[in-house]
Amino acid sequence: MAAADVERLIRLLAKLPGLGPRSARRAALHMIQRKETVMLPLAEALAQTAESVGVCATCGNVDTVNPCEICADPRRDPAIICVVEQVGDLWALERASAFRGRYHVLGGVLSALDGVSPEDLNIESLIPRAADPAVTEIILATNATVDGQTTAHYITERLEESGVEITRLARGVPVGGELDYLDDGTLVTAFASRKGI
Amino acid sequence: MAAADVERLIRLLAKLPGLGPRSARRAALHMIQRKETVMLPLAEALAQTAESVGVCATCGNVDTVNPCEICADPRRDPAIICVVEQVGDLWALERASAFRGRYHVLGGVLSALDGVSPEDLNIESLIPRAADPAVTEIILATNATVDGQTTAHYITERLEESGVEITRLARGVPVGGELDYLDDGTLVTAFASRKGI
Ligand SMILES: [Zn+2]
Ligand SMILES: [Zn+2]
Repeated sequence: MAAADVERLIRLLAKLPGLGPRSARRAALHMIQRKETVMLPLAEALAQTAESVGVCATCGNVDTVNPCEICADPRRDPAIICVVEQVGDLWALERASAFRGRYHVLGGVLSALDGVSPEDLNIESLIPRAADPAVTEIILATNATVDGQTTAHYITERLEESGVEITRLARGVPVGGELDYLDDGTLVTAFASRKGI
Repeated sequence: MAAADVERLIRLLAKLPGLGPRSARRAALHMIQRKETVMLPLAEALAQTAESVGVCATCGNVDTVNPCEICADPRRDPAIICVVEQVGDLWALERASAFRGRYHVLGGVLSALDGVSPEDLNIESLIPRAADPAVTEIILATNATVDGQTTAHYITERLEESGVEITRLARGVPVGGELDYLDDGTLVTAFASRKGI
């Protein structure tokens, strides 16, 4: 049916989250019929982003500079670090303008089921960050899921000796909810009423 | 929040059918974290496909050669031409192995609402194809929607003088249904029991 190049394109598109084989075919066809306006600009943007974007060595955020713009921004409060599971959570909090401190991206959560242990996550580098006297508060903004709360509990124990204040988001976050799916108002409220653990 | 390159990538991804802003963000992040295995291969496949793939001047199919492999295949029956709305419909019929003749892709349907008139579609080039004495049957496989049937009716009138037999797919196609969403069995049955208009 479709030429080999088109089939390879469909196979690659079908691997993206949210796209199955059918929607990948539709997307491929859509692009083939819009080479100049959609397909080539997207090819360019992918190559360009792959070239320019990397992971911040300090916080784990994704950016074109290292340290990332948030870590390097002198207007962001260096005293508060918000720990999130994924970069997508960081993006959600930034979209909501819910927080003006710095971040720490774990890259996942502890999970016995999925075999994710502490050394699989970006936890070790949080210890010296939390021990910095300039840092006064660590907000554990992991998701309100069992794994997210287990991870928060583990990090709390690991940071016990640092003496830093550890808080979690207020219970405005619905049980089982994921940050990335919440509206801005809920995120802002949850930040404003965060409390000590 | 995200760097300019990432935001441009998200904007372009969000334009694809089936992807909204949220899923575009997830797809972008997914790729940034898999540069070598997903992002760069996709960039390459897009550029390569844009370079290699074009539209068949005979039938309107999408392929790396012109005329396309179907038009050039001597094992395909040159006596029967199946008229479809979109390349996606052609792909669906090929996946189902429902048909062994040639195709003619209209590139859409007549629609008073959307302001699509005959000259907007690939209809004019069908007239000489149908007039070829080697062609004995034209199957109008437009969708079983109002616009699809209006378009079939218009083409029937345009081909009246050619004397070619005109058929449509059997009413195995559910009313309001679109070819691309049907299972293979339904497509095969609909082809086998096609009847004269
Ligand atoms: Zn950073
Ligand atoms: Zn062709």
